[in-house]
Amino acid sequence: MGAEPTLMRREIGEIPATVERILAGSADIDAVATAVRRFQPRWVTIAARGTSDHAAVYAQYLIEHQLGIPTGLAKPSVTTIYEGQLDWQGVLVLAISQSGRSPDIVAVTAAARKGGALTVAITNEDDTPLAAAADLALRCHAGPELAVPATKTYVADLAVLAAVVGALRPDRLPRGELEGMPASLRAVEAATDAWLDGAAAQLDAFASADRALVVSRGYNLATALELSLKLKETCGLFAEPYSTADFAHGPLILAGPGVPALGIRPDGAVGALVDQAMDTIEGRGGSALRIGGREASRWRDALALPGDLPETLSPLAFAVAGQLVVESVARRRGLDPDAPPGLNKVTLTR
Amino acid sequence: MGAEPTLMRREIGEIPATVERILAGSADIDAVATAVRRFQPRWVTIAARGTSDHAAVYAQYLIEHQLGIPTGLAKPSVTTIYEGQLDWQGVLVLAISQSGRSPDIVAVTAAARKGGALTVAITNEDDTPLAAAADLALRCHAGPELAVPATKTYVADLAVLAAVVGALRPDRLPRGELEGMPASLRAVEAATDAWLDGAAAQLDAFASADRALVVSRGYNLATALELSLKLKETCGLFAEPYSTADFAHGPLILAGPGVPALGIRPDGAVGALVDQAMDTIEGRGGSALRIGGREASRWRDALALPGDLPETLSPLAFAVAGQLVVESVARRRGLDPDAPPGLNKVTLTR
Repeated sequence: MGAEPTLMRREIGEIPATVERILAGSADIDAVATAVRRFQPRWVTIAARGTSDHAAVYAQYLIEHQLGIPTGLAKPSVTTIYEGQLDWQGVLVLAISQSGRSPDIVAVTAAARKGGALTVAITNEDDTPLAAAADLALRCHAGPELAVPATKTYVADLAVLAAVVGALRPDRLPRGELEGMPASLRAVEAATDAWLDGAAAQLDAFASADRALVVSRGYNLATALELSLKLKETCGLFAEPYSTADFAHGPLILAGPGVPALGIRPDGAVGALVDQAMDTIEGRGGSALRIGGREASRWRDALALPGDLPETLSPLAFAVAGQLVVESVARRRGLDPDAPPGLNKVTLTR
Repeated sequence: MGAEPTLMRREIGEIPATVERILAGSADIDAVATAVRRFQPRWVTIAARGTSDHAAVYAQYLIEHQLGIPTGLAKPSVTTIYEGQLDWQGVLVLAISQSGRSPDIVAVTAAARKGGALTVAITNEDDTPLAAAADLALRCHAGPELAVPATKTYVADLAVLAAVVGALRPDRLPRGELEGMPASLRAVEAATDAWLDGAAAQLDAFASADRALVVSRGYNLATALELSLKLKETCGLFAEPYSTADFAHGPLILAGPGVPALGIRPDGAVGALVDQAMDTIEGRGGSALRIGGREASRWRDALALPGDLPETLSPLAFAVAGQLVVESVARRRGLDPDAPPGLNKVTLTR
């Protein structure tokens, strides 16, 4: 093509090196793990907005499944608007904000710390109000993100969260699996680029639509949420994300001709549930594209990613592949994915 | 018109009497309040799907704001698919399912009870597996719901939740306010019917669209979620629900001509935030319809509901008004809101 790659495309390409830097910064990760072990949290609350809120959904599965601690997502307005006084004792608060400047996330973190929570900030930028408000801070090491849609910082959030949980439970999430991720992500990037070259029909289904569905379950519900937001931000598509379970509770009625569906399909039990949803969608006349692991190669049109992808870490790989697909769809629509009209990089909400 | 009202319309009309029956059954409510007081929960997890999940969002605001207990929404697949072992001690689990038969909600409740949680089921039907799995059960008293879209059972869930919180903290949510709700809801129903007669333009904006936005914040985020699901189920509309804060983080790009927006606008601080979102939407060429309290009468086209609506209980009133609007939009589209093609009343997901 000869055209310059978009910022979004280049920043997706920086993800493997970002994950390497996160893993190299294991002293910070270990310090947080030590503090968490000492604190012995009985409950985890995650405070985040937008893309970071999708990393929070991943964190809920990761923490509940691997650490066994019940986890919830904060409703910041309880603190900022209603001035509710929560009992924060025994709670670990993870506050995720790439800019570190979202006033409502800072407010929840400050209130929780004052109330006895252990508070940990995860940010990409340095010297942020959020890091100052928290007991401990972790960095995403993604470098400046210039495209408006967050890509590398989202995957960096996932990697930081996985590294912390891995440091707490290396028996369940071994260091070796994490250290294999940068190479896996490079292979995913190459495989996706190759697939995109021959996927005109699949991409056009999304490029010509104004509505879409994105479906997954479990760990990759986060991926479905994140890719649907990316389709909205870069393409203006009404892309509705669903867990396969919630999809069956009514929204399946949205499926039909002209409404392409994207299924994030890890191998195994969740993959089978995604297949059920895809079958429903195709039965109603919609087209179905799977991004999956090895099992996805059963479907001729699918993007089947290479390598062993343990489901716990697969959201990193599916996010990279999905971001590349979305970036391609945006360009096919004739849009500039780097600068969607009307959006700013940093959003300050109370 | 002379035509028979739809089942959906008739069931919305049964809401005030349903709330009266819930308040009359205060012995059950008091028994739960006593058990909760004795248990002294440190955290609350709510397990629900579909419409009930929106009642769960209301419950999170209600419990965090009025009781000060950190609250989260369960991810049932952590238990059912990943077989995660959570530490449930000190946790109050509220399980909401109108049918009382959703296998994943039953499984979470059983696991939590076994693990030391206090478990309370909220169901509409009698003798359900969910009520059997829980320590205590509360009933919605809504009678059989025959239309596929849940209306009266949703508002009944909200009323049950408010009654329990009121029994625990009558200083913050006085019994008198709850007892005033049936009359308020009858006034809301009458005011909405009268408004609908002169609202052809506002209804047509939704009846002719295939995409829409529904926006609110705080307690009424639940209302936005629920009305967007109702627009999907009855009209096939891609109606995207957002908190005003998340809306500002990217999805505002979806606003534009042909994409009508519904703002749920309680009086006060949240109302002002909804106005900001509505201004953004109108600035991008979209039409904006407010359902609100007294302050909404500033806007000529708005549905401004009568009476004093304390924000804590306003989601009941806004749900009734919004359900009536959605039912009207569905009929204007020539659809039968009682039986959307392809949907079943009870959904069994694991």
